[in-house]
Amino acid sequence: MTEPFRPAGEGLRTRLFQIIFESDTPLAKGFDIALIVTILASVLVVMLDSVDHLSAAHGEWFYWLEWGFTIVFTIELLVRIYILDKPLRYLRSFYGMIDLVAILPTWLMLLVPGTQTLVIVRLLRVLRIFRVLRLMQFVGEGRLLVGALKNSVRQIFLFLFTVFLLVTLFAALVYMIEPAEAGFTSIPMAIYWAIVTLTTVGYGDIVPITPLGQAISTLVMLIGYSIIAVPTGVFSAEVIRSIRADRYSDQACPGCGHDRHEKRALYCLKCGTWLDEETQDPNRPLENGKR
Amino acid sequence: MTEPFRPAGEGLRTRLFQIIFESDTPLAKGFDIALIVTILASVLVVMLDSVDHLSAAHGEWFYWLEWGFTIVFTIELLVRIYILDKPLRYLRSFYGMIDLVAILPTWLMLLVPGTQTLVIVRLLRVLRIFRVLRLMQFVGEGRLLVGALKNSVRQIFLFLFTVFLLVTLFAALVYMIEPAEAGFTSIPMAIYWAIVTLTTVGYGDIVPITPLGQAISTLVMLIGYSIIAVPTGVFSAEVIRSIRADRYSDQACPGCGHDRHEKRALYCLKCGTWLDEETQDPNRPLENGKR
Amino acid sequence: MTEPFRPAGEGLRTRLFQIIFESDTPLAKGFDIALIVTILASVLVVMLDSVDHLSAAHGEWFYWLEWGFTIVFTIELLVRIYILDKPLRYLRSFYGMIDLVAILPTWLMLLVPGTQTLVIVRLLRVLRIFRVLRLMQFVGEGRLLVGALKNSVRQIFLFLFTVFLLVTLFAALVYMIEPAEAGFTSIPMAIYWAIVTLTTVGYGDIVPITPLGQAISTLVMLIGYSIIAVPTGVFSAEVIRSIRADRYSDQACPGCGHDRHEKRALYCLKCGTWLDEETQDPNRPLENGKR
Amino acid sequence: MTEPFRPAGEGLRTRLFQIIFESDTPLAKGFDIALIVTILASVLVVMLDSVDHLSAAHGEWFYWLEWGFTIVFTIELLVRIYILDKPLRYLRSFYGMIDLVAILPTWLMLLVPGTQTLVIVRLLRVLRIFRVLRLMQFVGEGRLLVGALKNSVRQIFLFLFTVFLLVTLFAALVYMIEPAEAGFTSIPMAIYWAIVTLTTVGYGDIVPITPLGQAISTLVMLIGYSIIAVPTGVFSAEVIRSIRADRYSDQACPGCGHDRHEKRALYCLKCGTWLDEETQDPNRPLENGKR
Repeated sequence: MTEPFRPAGEGLRTRLFQIIFESDTPLAKGFDIALIVTILASVLVVMLDSVDHLSAAHGEWFYWLEWGFTIVFTIELLVRIYILDKPLRYLRSFYGMIDLVAILPTWLMLLVPGTQTLVIVRLLRVLRIFRVLRLMQFVGEGRLLVGALKNSVRQIFLFLFTVFLLVTLFAALVYMIEPAEAGFTSIPMAIYWAIVTLTTVGYGDIVPITPLGQAISTLVMLIGYSIIAVPTGVFSAEVIRSIRADRYSDQACPGCGHDRHEKRALYCLKCGTWLDEETQDPNRPLENGKR
Repeated sequence: MTEPFRPAGEGLRTRLFQIIFESDTPLAKGFDIALIVTILASVLVVMLDSVDHLSAAHGEWFYWLEWGFTIVFTIELLVRIYILDKPLRYLRSFYGMIDLVAILPTWLMLLVPGTQTLVIVRLLRVLRIFRVLRLMQFVGEGRLLVGALKNSVRQIFLFLFTVFLLVTLFAALVYMIEPAEAGFTSIPMAIYWAIVTLTTVGYGDIVPITPLGQAISTLVMLIGYSIIAVPTGVFSAEVIRSIRADRYSDQACPGCGHDRHEKRALYCLKCGTWLDEETQDPNRPLENGKR
Repeated sequence: MTEPFRPAGEGLRTRLFQIIFESDTPLAKGFDIALIVTILASVLVVMLDSVDHLSAAHGEWFYWLEWGFTIVFTIELLVRIYILDKPLRYLRSFYGMIDLVAILPTWLMLLVPGTQTLVIVRLLRVLRIFRVLRLMQFVGEGRLLVGALKNSVRQIFLFLFTVFLLVTLFAALVYMIEPAEAGFTSIPMAIYWAIVTLTTVGYGDIVPITPLGQAISTLVMLIGYSIIAVPTGVFSAEVIRSIRADRYSDQACPGCGHDRHEKRALYCLKCGTWLDEETQDPNRPLENGKR
Repeated sequence: MTEPFRPAGEGLRTRLFQIIFESDTPLAKGFDIALIVTILASVLVVMLDSVDHLSAAHGEWFYWLEWGFTIVFTIELLVRIYILDKPLRYLRSFYGMIDLVAILPTWLMLLVPGTQTLVIVRLLRVLRIFRVLRLMQFVGEGRLLVGALKNSVRQIFLFLFTVFLLVTLFAALVYMIEPAEAGFTSIPMAIYWAIVTLTTVGYGDIVPITPLGQAISTLVMLIGYSIIAVPTGVFSAEVIRSIRADRYSDQACPGCGHDRHEKRALYCLKCGTWLDEETQDPNRPLENGKR
């Protein structure tokens, strides 16, 4: 997604746009880094404020820091709105809503007493970092991973559905076998236990105590230990395919019929025939003198 | 497996067949989705009914909902039987038996008092969802995964047998070392511990307490942590092979009848005969001059 | 390894050899299966005998069953010795020693009182199953896995050494930070904790209780969670390489220079030229009429 | 990195250099092994000395052993300094600093009382083993793994950032839901719990006790169980790519200077020039008629 709201004219707005919405100039990069640091600092303050003895000792500090961050983020949002030609469309976009959510809880706390529980919502600020990463050079890597995930999403859905089935059936089985004293008080509780076991988390808060229950739970463990191979195998295959897909074309050489040339090839590596222009990757720059 | 029981004539039965057993028309898709929702809802009711305080508060509701679902599923089964030309063969098939199992416990509860424990059997209804998934477009993905699993089943069996051996030997070793107070009261108990440890589940209900026992258990952990690479590697390789498998066409050579040529092949690799144009991958560009 | 001790003459010994040491005839296969079942049954008896209440109730049964199995295995070993031309060399081989170890503890119990603790040694019988699997068709799978393991053994050694380093350094760090009350009473204990954490087993018998210790342990967890990718990746790559290695030769076609033919190819799939005999896999059967 | 400080002249220093800094001669190999054994022994003494009852019983022994190791390592360092032409540059290198750190704590203990806590620093000696491994033939394997890690570092960073995001948001959610009595006393504590859960470690020291909290934590478990596929898949693909990377030769085309041709290439893929015979893979058979 490219930012589609860039200002028409030249001048201050255009320059601010380059700093805030783009990432090419040193100033823009400095802004990006400052923004990440500020977001992380504000998130850290929210976290530390939740620790009782830190809150008791430094609560006032945290309070004013929070206000400082909120004012900084509010100014930033106002500048973004000022820059853009279609600010409302921005506010309704994903990143616009995150920007709003990042500052609203603190302002609400001022207006409406008793909205302290909204404090946690401020942690959503952390999502704003994604925007900055997107501007920096993590696009390629992210696209590769997301692409591989998208291609394997149906297999992974099938896998998760099978996990859900196994969990349900084993949970019901162990629920019938184990006494309630062991913690298996209901089927949902047994499902919780089955997921804890199958995913190899193994809290140990609920464990089978009868020999039969233990025997069945070792089965669940071995299944969980083995079927992790399924999503891993599917995803590995997908990543390998993605990496390879953009190196070779399947175009055959008109001279000798050899296929599997690298996309960048202009001449057949087997017989030296010029590979027809139309069969080439359109992104390749022309090298006329050579031809 | 294709449904082999389709009704011969036209009319109501054929139309019902298309809705219930197939998945091409909008009506059939709607039926599939309604069926999945109903199954999940009925499973949810069974689960919630097992929670004591929910059962106490809403038990009556759950009771009547259960009867509602049972009647719906019974009608559905009767319709299926009415549609099919060979209903008995259907009832003896896997999905037919699941259909029966899904409704029997509730009807039995009416006839035979004290069959409450069969309640859990109702959860097998969840297996009926597989049929619907099969009708929808998850066949390809499932076949890929199941195919890869089948191809690697011997390696995975060998792997599980090795795990079983390691578990037995380490369990016997730790059983000799650790005192019974630590929970290692018998070899089966020690095997339970060894599986909990090797699969990295780690409940913590039985843990070694002697230095030597702890040293050996770290060995078990490191082995379990490392050998997970084996099924994962085997399965990954298998998935990659499956994906690549469609580089082969099943077209036979007009010269010698050899099949299983790579799709890119222009000449038979057994007798050198030119493979007919029609047998080629349609995506390949024509190279007439050469030919 | 092939059994190198086969009897020279014909007659009873040769026939027994085919049944016991080979696996081609129905009788030999029946013997293999009977042997696996007997071994598993005898191991099961050893295990169940270690459970106090089963031992109290059925101890006598277990005692006589154990003697039964011991006598069967003793007869089997005597027959093996009778069959072979070099029985002493067999007894000094791996499988010969396992055969001996499988029966010695019970006979010793008779001769030397107070050798009850040797009981566990009997579990080594389970290793005898490997011999039978070797005879059956699991050789190929095992060779593939063992080959891939051998090829990646140096990488996996480096990986385990890095794990050992990380574990030592993090254990020392957390040992300094955490109080002894949390269970971190010595560096070896801290190493035990670090391995439990890094391998994601997570018993929970020793856990950090200070904020700094918890922060460091989350680092250990994330490292353990991530570096599992290393052995898995190395082993996957090795399996894929092994599978692929015996499909393609890198021999180039003398006609058009195309390489990457399947080993079974006799003619170039691009230009139909006959691939020179010397460049071919020597295992291929000659097809003279065709050529 | 090659050691850049080798002595200019012949004689004792050169011979010592070959033994200590290189690994080609039997004497040098013997020195390497002796060094590894000494380092491991000294590390073992530090570990055992931290066990209270061993320290009480054998503390004197450990004390004098430690002095023995320290003196041996000091002499070794002095010899290294004597050998090299630029000893100061060596001392400022990574391995020089590790050499110093390995002996300083014990000498400091003599000079400055109360520096007992530096005891742990001695464990850094273990890092010295890397130097020896580097000299031996583990360079290739290490370079492969480190290369694959470097190539996938951006993807793995993205992965860890996503993990950090998930952990933060789920921790905040469960912190709001669960009572403090369950151990969720602050957001940092909830983050500790979320990492313990997502990485499938599952200590069980802090576990959710409300149904909603348990439901959310099963979600965290399933996510952690599934997304382990991401680093594994990325790293597997990278290792496979690294292994395959030596399909390229770095030979430049005599026509246009383009390098990075596949080893199997006969003609430059940029200008179609015939690649000189000497630039080819020597394993390729000559195909003179064609040329």
